[in-house]
Amino acid sequence: METHGRRVAGAALLRERVTEVITAAVLDELADTGYARMSMEAVARRAGVGKAALYRRWPSKEVMVQQIVDTLAGNAVPIPDTGNLREDVSGYVAHAAALRNDLRTTRIIADLSAEAIRNPQLAQSFSAALREPRRAAGTTMLHHAMERGELPADLDTDLALDCLVALTHARPQTLTASGELAAPYSHDRLVEVILVALAACRR
Amino acid sequence: METHGRRVAGAALLRERVTEVITAAVLDELADTGYARMSMEAVARRAGVGKAALYRRWPSKEVMVQQIVDTLAGNAVPIPDTGNLREDVSGYVAHAAALRNDLRTTRIIADLSAEAIRNPQLAQSFSAALREPRRAAGTTMLHHAMERGELPADLDTDLALDCLVALTHARPQTLTASGELAAPYSHDRLVEVILVALAACRR
Repeated sequence: METHGRRVAGAALLRERVTEVITAAVLDELADTGYARMSMEAVARRAGVGKAALYRRWPSKEVMVQQIVDTLAGNAVPIPDTGNLREDVSGYVAHAAALRNDLRTTRIIADLSAEAIRNPQLAQSFSAALREPRRAAGTTMLHHAMERGELPADLDTDLALDCLVALTHARPQTLTASGELAAPYSHDRLVEVILVALAACRR
Repeated sequence: METHGRRVAGAALLRERVTEVITAAVLDELADTGYARMSMEAVARRAGVGKAALYRRWPSKEVMVQQIVDTLAGNAVPIPDTGNLREDVSGYVAHAAALRNDLRTTRIIADLSAEAIRNPQLAQSFSAALREPRRAAGTTMLHHAMERGELPADLDTDLALDCLVALTHARPQTLTASGELAAPYSHDRLVEVILVALAACRR
């Protein structure tokens, strides 16, 4: 019985390990060729597994990408709630800079965002997995700052949230002539501009 | 001679008209299927012309899309220089809202932006045709405002320009659950936030 139990645990571990390898292959394929051109064949080849290993996990490319994005959503830029708005914004900007500094992630985000405008099902899936929980967390962060008197009582939280996100990613994601990402701004200056803009988002 | 001249003029006019029809077909294809999946065959079919008509004008899909983007760049959101910063920003925001209100344009911009992160040649072409002339015009607009004392003398024009663009497009371009674009903000409130943010972009 113990041997059987160990064998089952070993199989589950192996299955998990293969899922990790496939997930990495999906992300590499997304970055290199994009969602539109990506095929299950190419993912399987890159992961060094058979196509059956993919279809045992996900019925289609759509479901595969949606579930992987769901899983990664937990690792997305966290929205802090430190008890101080400047520290919250500073932490948010720092996390976003670290994430966007990775060219692979930047490519994948741009690619899936473009695809989502064309594909309402993908758009809804991203909205539920990423946008809605993040907006809820962001609204909480702003409400706490309002309660502490760090933001005006008549704040338009919807506008303020969009401004926070837009200014955090203000540095264009286009590549320089040499194919690199543009250097980020001075962290403190960007945080200052965001704080001033947020305070101006009144109803 | 006069008949010949008229025939040549007629042929040139027809050629121009066919180029317009193909251009419309390219934009529709870009919006519906995206750059990656778009084929010369599909463009020709949609335009109701032979593939030869495309290749007589452009040697490849890459060159075709680049030249069409170059041509359209002139119609992109103009950067005003009215002699008053609030009016400049107001005009810029109004033009951008009109442009982005068109779902086809929004899809094409998102699609080509994502493709450009993966395709350095496309990125350079867009940069030369769109980004650089627009940044030059934007810098002029900000310098004039600095000269008039509407913006601080130690303005970081690079940061200010990125903030102007980011806040103008702060409303997420994702679709709502019903597949529509999100409604724009109150024009005046957005202009106010932008003016406050610009003034905070100091060196």
